[in-house]
Amino acid sequence: MGSTKAVVLLSGGLDSATCLGIASQDQEVHALTIDYGSKHSREMESAKKLAAHYDVASHIILKVELDAIGGSSLTDKNIELDTGKDIAQIGKEIPSSYVPARNMTFLSLAVALAEVVGAESVYIGANAVDFSGYPDCRPEFMDAFQRAAELGTKAGVEGRPVKVQAPLLHKTKAEVIKTGMNLKVPYELTWTCYSGGKKACGKCEACTLRLGGFYNAGKKDPLEYEE
Amino acid sequence: MGSTKAVVLLSGGLDSATCLGIASQDQEVHALTIDYGSKHSREMESAKKLAAHYDVASHIILKVELDAIGGSSLTDKNIELDTGKDIAQIGKEIPSSYVPARNMTFLSLAVALAEVVGAESVYIGANAVDFSGYPDCRPEFMDAFQRAAELGTKAGVEGRPVKVQAPLLHKTKAEVIKTGMNLKVPYELTWTCYSGGKKACGKCEACTLRLGGFYNAGKKDPLEYEE
Repeated sequence: MGSTKAVVLLSGGLDSATCLGIASQDQEVHALTIDYGSKHSREMESAKKLAAHYDVASHIILKVELDAIGGSSLTDKNIELDTGKDIAQIGKEIPSSYVPARNMTFLSLAVALAEVVGAESVYIGANAVDFSGYPDCRPEFMDAFQRAAELGTKAGVEGRPVKVQAPLLHKTKAEVIKTGMNLKVPYELTWTCYSGGKKACGKCEACTLRLGGFYNAGKKDPLEYEE
Repeated sequence: MGSTKAVVLLSGGLDSATCLGIASQDQEVHALTIDYGSKHSREMESAKKLAAHYDVASHIILKVELDAIGGSSLTDKNIELDTGKDIAQIGKEIPSSYVPARNMTFLSLAVALAEVVGAESVYIGANAVDFSGYPDCRPEFMDAFQRAAELGTKAGVEGRPVKVQAPLLHKTKAEVIKTGMNLKVPYELTWTCYSGGKKACGKCEACTLRLGGFYNAGKKDPLEYEE
């Protein structure tokens, strides 16, 4: 634990776990998990286990009822999940799992927490390479958000703006996994699958990207999958 | 009600009521009230009454537990409200009622709702003149946020970015009140006071700005105040 502080957005998935591993190397970490009414709570359990594993300085689980807004297959039961897609198709269009303005909302809350705990930066596991088609995982969005955060916060006005760190932004999923494995990130504690069954489905977009990443990294995924 | 749609951030205060009056002139309005764990619920009641008065197309009250983050006298009971300030002092420093990254969070949620209902714009009652010292009420923040919203949303990527409308940004409180009175905004339904007693206190920053505004506009505030 170092002299600087960081807020890490921790969903419980593979990317945010890797971010937590990166940020925890030399900083005091405050984890922020947003419970936004997605259809399953498996990720939430993973977030708790990861926060405990890294012995974070604080872990806030914040309820934000994005399901009241809807508009995504992750938050609205009337919208179907995309399944069975070929991996080559993923990223070519914005999928039904896109949650309107999610990263903007989550980063805003992370910046708020950073201001309160006096953290210099916020970490988000966004990924622009295997970005699954989400507009709010692109570098140009991160830059624009950084500017808004500088201008719209007390910390920014006082000359110590909170920096947005997206260390996975330009990595492929395989590179993310290699980075995490080098840092001994406990991927067996993470959860990626959108459907949230007892075992991961292996078929949804998220599983497809994860499995492809482990395959390309030449590593074995420690999670169990349905047959 | 016109052919365009708007989301209005409706706190229940004077400024957001005026925004609602402006937006409702010729648009289908979807009101969004964020229940963020501030110390009193009087504003929430006002928001409901205002939404009913304007017969909005929908009114979502969204719980976001900003009190779990804290850092403001509005959300943290350990931080005292500033009271008894001279009106000339207000705006010279960032007050204890500053809620970290509040407008960034609220605008993000409003943009999310705009994407879902297909609204062209979101209205926020931010005010940069009598701005009470909040960095996220400044025009430069609004511009930066607009850019982030264009880049970070499906609507933006698809060439129909949600526009941030802050029609009160450059108005004094007196001008806001004159605008609202011309539009017959029912100010008797609004609530401004930070302390949330039975009657408005007349002493907190918010009351001070409101009363000064009515005085400068040469109008009578229809609300009752403590003696």
